[in-house]
Amino acid sequence: MSSAAGGVGAAVLGATGTVGQRFLERLWEHPTFEVRSLVGSDRGAGRPYRERSHWLMDAAMPDDLADRPVEDLATLRGRDDIDVVFSALPSSVAGPVETALADAGRHVFTNASDHRMDPYVPLLIPEVNPDHLALVERQDRPGSIVANGNCSAIVLSLALAPLHRAFGLQAVHVTTLQGLSGAGYPGVPALDVIDNVLPLIPGEEDKLETEPQKTLGTLDAPASFSTTATATRVPVREGHLEAVHARFEAPVTVADAEAAWRDFRGPDAVQALPSSPAAPIHVTDRPDGPQPRRDRDQEDGMAITVGRARNDPSGKWLQFIALGHNTVRGAAGQSILNAEYAHAEGLLARRS
Amino acid sequence: MSSAAGGVGAAVLGATGTVGQRFLERLWEHPTFEVRSLVGSDRGAGRPYRERSHWLMDAAMPDDLADRPVEDLATLRGRDDIDVVFSALPSSVAGPVETALADAGRHVFTNASDHRMDPYVPLLIPEVNPDHLALVERQDRPGSIVANGNCSAIVLSLALAPLHRAFGLQAVHVTTLQGLSGAGYPGVPALDVIDNVLPLIPGEEDKLETEPQKTLGTLDAPASFSTTATATRVPVREGHLEAVHARFEAPVTVADAEAAWRDFRGPDAVQALPSSPAAPIHVTDRPDGPQPRRDRDQEDGMAITVGRARNDPSGKWLQFIALGHNTVRGAAGQSILNAEYAHAEGLLARRS
Amino acid sequence: MSSAAGGVGAAVLGATGTVGQRFLERLWEHPTFEVRSLVGSDRGAGRPYRERSHWLMDAAMPDDLADRPVEDLATLRGRDDIDVVFSALPSSVAGPVETALADAGRHVFTNASDHRMDPYVPLLIPEVNPDHLALVERQDRPGSIVANGNCSAIVLSLALAPLHRAFGLQAVHVTTLQGLSGAGYPGVPALDVIDNVLPLIPGEEDKLETEPQKTLGTLDAPASFSTTATATRVPVREGHLEAVHARFEAPVTVADAEAAWRDFRGPDAVQALPSSPAAPIHVTDRPDGPQPRRDRDQEDGMAITVGRARNDPSGKWLQFIALGHNTVRGAAGQSILNAEYAHAEGLLARRS
Amino acid sequence: MSSAAGGVGAAVLGATGTVGQRFLERLWEHPTFEVRSLVGSDRGAGRPYRERSHWLMDAAMPDDLADRPVEDLATLRGRDDIDVVFSALPSSVAGPVETALADAGRHVFTNASDHRMDPYVPLLIPEVNPDHLALVERQDRPGSIVANGNCSAIVLSLALAPLHRAFGLQAVHVTTLQGLSGAGYPGVPALDVIDNVLPLIPGEEDKLETEPQKTLGTLDAPASFSTTATATRVPVREGHLEAVHARFEAPVTVADAEAAWRDFRGPDAVQALPSSPAAPIHVTDRPDGPQPRRDRDQEDGMAITVGRARNDPSGKWLQFIALGHNTVRGAAGQSILNAEYAHAEGLLARRS
Repeated sequence: MSSAAGGVGAAVLGATGTVGQRFLERLWEHPTFEVRSLVGSDRGAGRPYRERSHWLMDAAMPDDLADRPVEDLATLRGRDDIDVVFSALPSSVAGPVETALADAGRHVFTNASDHRMDPYVPLLIPEVNPDHLALVERQDRPGSIVANGNCSAIVLSLALAPLHRAFGLQAVHVTTLQGLSGAGYPGVPALDVIDNVLPLIPGEEDKLETEPQKTLGTLDAPASFSTTATATRVPVREGHLEAVHARFEAPVTVADAEAAWRDFRGPDAVQALPSSPAAPIHVTDRPDGPQPRRDRDQEDGMAITVGRARNDPSGKWLQFIALGHNTVRGAAGQSILNAEYAHAEGLLARRS
Repeated sequence: MSSAAGGVGAAVLGATGTVGQRFLERLWEHPTFEVRSLVGSDRGAGRPYRERSHWLMDAAMPDDLADRPVEDLATLRGRDDIDVVFSALPSSVAGPVETALADAGRHVFTNASDHRMDPYVPLLIPEVNPDHLALVERQDRPGSIVANGNCSAIVLSLALAPLHRAFGLQAVHVTTLQGLSGAGYPGVPALDVIDNVLPLIPGEEDKLETEPQKTLGTLDAPASFSTTATATRVPVREGHLEAVHARFEAPVTVADAEAAWRDFRGPDAVQALPSSPAAPIHVTDRPDGPQPRRDRDQEDGMAITVGRARNDPSGKWLQFIALGHNTVRGAAGQSILNAEYAHAEGLLARRS
Repeated sequence: MSSAAGGVGAAVLGATGTVGQRFLERLWEHPTFEVRSLVGSDRGAGRPYRERSHWLMDAAMPDDLADRPVEDLATLRGRDDIDVVFSALPSSVAGPVETALADAGRHVFTNASDHRMDPYVPLLIPEVNPDHLALVERQDRPGSIVANGNCSAIVLSLALAPLHRAFGLQAVHVTTLQGLSGAGYPGVPALDVIDNVLPLIPGEEDKLETEPQKTLGTLDAPASFSTTATATRVPVREGHLEAVHARFEAPVTVADAEAAWRDFRGPDAVQALPSSPAAPIHVTDRPDGPQPRRDRDQEDGMAITVGRARNDPSGKWLQFIALGHNTVRGAAGQSILNAEYAHAEGLLARRS
Repeated sequence: MSSAAGGVGAAVLGATGTVGQRFLERLWEHPTFEVRSLVGSDRGAGRPYRERSHWLMDAAMPDDLADRPVEDLATLRGRDDIDVVFSALPSSVAGPVETALADAGRHVFTNASDHRMDPYVPLLIPEVNPDHLALVERQDRPGSIVANGNCSAIVLSLALAPLHRAFGLQAVHVTTLQGLSGAGYPGVPALDVIDNVLPLIPGEEDKLETEPQKTLGTLDAPASFSTTATATRVPVREGHLEAVHARFEAPVTVADAEAAWRDFRGPDAVQALPSSPAAPIHVTDRPDGPQPRRDRDQEDGMAITVGRARNDPSGKWLQFIALGHNTVRGAAGQSILNAEYAHAEGLLARRS
């Protein structure tokens, strides 16, 4: 395969949903990737994107996107101008589709959960575990699959990363207050969340309790801290807020923790990527921050914000609030950053 | 002092605020207590209640309440027909006022925080620690002060009580999602919580971390478990939801925990009180319950609801959701139940 | 057909939806009607109500309702113990089903729109147009169909009725702010109405512009005033608020209008019905009333509330706010009141 | 007075409130105006802006703004480097302050209502009534006062302007659904608008009923159409939505109206201003638009959006929805555009 002039050829699967829209919004004028195919469900294939998508982004739908046809998966097969596939497929269907695409030489960057815990699939946050990208070598196929974590797990992993490195994380209790866009569209009925919150997000707690260990672990073994999670849904459009109580091997002061967050940066190669924020973690000085509406768009949604750090008397527990944009850093933005990093590392060129 | 025919004479302090309104709503046709004085701030004393109060209760303001004058504190002094004082005063002013009233022979049942941690003031939930009422003997004054806990601490204490007794509670991590009425009126500006949540409620976490130990302890010593809390405000009118992660001495199964909750009852004398719910703790069978809007009014707001109990692999941690009505069981309703119990135990008669 | 002891046998069609739930809530211990069949869609017929219904009522689902099977329409055919059918069917399917039932001798009280404008089907509000019930004679079939209006049209018709009678209504401009339950469940996605309102409710404006004329007209001709409507959806759970600007033949003072509303009552026979409110129209004295949350439950949802009446300088225009509970007075409660009135008038006995 | 290099010297009065923040956000890097003084209430004068302001804008507070001191009004007196004053003062205090400043040679662009109906104060929307700017000549003082209308009146005036010109407007019925920021901060308590709307905004309807006539009239007489208004508050952060029913001298088709809106532009001199939108009025093609959240930020908040145009059978009434950003086009943005126009017309140079 070869990329046409103008960028690395890309397709977006599940292009009409909320995460698919986010992919398109952020890929539409991307310096590296050029979206050459929008793939939706089979019903109504060929009809233009504007008719197939209930557009929820704040910015208007680009005119040339609106007119593009939504294709079905089959049409992707014959296309040799597409090297990279961004997957916003629902987990129920993503698994075999992504496997087939990787076997057929495509590099799949997926937001779906199906392959996240596969031992050879990196659960990648380039600022945190860039070395995990090497796992794709073990996939031993023409293409590859690189996964990003669950939306709340990414925010948690990123917030914990500098603390884990510096202070030795032992245990985490986390309760999330998650925004509505995480449930897709139509998603949560308004009748369920006006004057109400929902203390259940099916499947979410398992992901929070297992994915950070993989991301913060080594190529061969997950990190050894334990996580216990409660996930709730709140009437907020976007942004996941997480109340984190974390125990460390040795006492950690608030000042130490804040310094670790502020100083945290990915490797130079990651910092240079188009979607990289100047700082992946911001520390707010608002006593009542971070908040979803005020902080979710930090660095175009690619930076998380932490705040309210405080200790228990023993000093070994640190409590804080973390906040991130669930469909940007927590989904599409993370996938794109992963693909940018893979491209920078030569992974895409090598195979195509 | 002597009670006039028709009930034990009572006054409500802070009668115009949200908790004051809740007191009046529940005391207005009470079988034991007769409200003989509404006390508000000094400004505008003598004007009728309807002009002084921004009524927020669902039921309409009773006509005869609407016409009653709001008095200032000074007028209470000369009244010998008032034995019981319900205090919904703000904490900044409650302390000395309540002390003076108790010294002057009134039995004060207070929702304010000032005296909660005084060693001789019971932090009473009659189903949980009825024996603590005896603490008032040690106050050694003509009247008495009995406190109820902070709104979220009451819900937590009640939910933990049967587990603590049965399984030996060691540590609690709790994150609260609290309704707006807890902040009073006008309270939280709408601009701050539409499409947003607030991860700070000043002073709340300290109370969650200390009050349950007093309520679940003995007359002489607090219980020894530790509590670590994060308190957040969500756009819900009423009802505090709490995500609780609790560690016990020995493994606790979900079935054991649910049985302990379902079987939990106060002593017979408490169960017979007018404000007592049939069961103080309900266990919901909704997989996505309890929820503020659906469950806050359980048993007229006097029962809490728990759900989503689940274990970690070790079995020593139990996670669950607790939900209670913050201005009923968490404030005015609790104070009234406390006064009913004190009356049933002869405490009010003894002194008046 | 004959009614079994205990009441007039009734079925509820569309029993699992939001309006169907409201029917069941209000019919469950009804003095006249006994629900003998719950009819839902064909899928899953026979399974218990608790499994088929996403219960949204504030009060808990009655235990004996929870266990009742949901039947399909076919099973209704052979039942000779059911005289009355309450229909909460969606308009797309209601028409022929209701016709067939009426032809088969059932008395159908429907909330669906299909037959509302049929010349022989009364659009009944017993306090307003009790004489319209006689239209069913012209249906010339063993059973009958009686319709209630669209939820916002009922509120408008009721608010206008006493003014129309007294002052000669000529023209109405109305803008509605409608609650979410009117769209059923799951209905409006939360992502569409958090921090937003929707200025379109498909089909609603047509109904507002035609139904009040029928209800306020004679048996033979609609009333002659014109109505122009804009319908919007707001993030309110229940309750439709309507901003009404109405022009009359002669000047109308605010005092005259308020007196007309306050004095408005149905005939004695209607006032005696189980679901009749003491006064169908309440006039609030709050300067910022009526409001959905505060006033929707007036008289158990069967009374509407008006307020903010004011004139333009000519005196011929009167502006006011009307507020009613859309699934009670605006749907199920109205249907039940209609059936109670038909029963009181001997209509049900005559045919069965 | 003379302007220092870098722009025309400006002060912002009421700089800490919601409209004051909007002024600062939009003036901070303005090509013409340079903010040289932030004026707040007298309490705490001299303390930095970050301590005095509860910042509500989406973008972060600029660092150099955060450190600027908030001054009191008295310090303005001696400043000869300030020619232009933007006033976001509350109406209760604005009148005499603005008069004194204009008498002292300042050009005041005010969002306050005090002087709006003064015969010599233009109620300016440069695209609509640029000729009204000449009214300031009649003020006969060293400085001048130019007012912008009430937030909802501006949106209405702008939406009506092209229709009024083309088709002869006779009467308007308008119901507004207004966002929360219009009430300032803290403004509306959350307890009043969660699961609720408020059908009263004190003083708003009077403004809607009189201001558009002045803006759409001549220098000497208001336009002759009548307006009848109902104003309501909805749980939306920003954006005022208006349901407009308008009667014209002759029938107006939807196509005619949409063409008039689409073609509407200010004079060339206005189109060239820094804050001018490319088109002041957008016509949405969403059947359920415009909506506050989706359309309020159109052209950086300076364009309004209309939609849902439809006729009544006579053709003389046109109904439509208009939507505008209440603190941008409806307040600060309008004031700044007015000042830009006055500057372009040489008004500021002439006097200073």
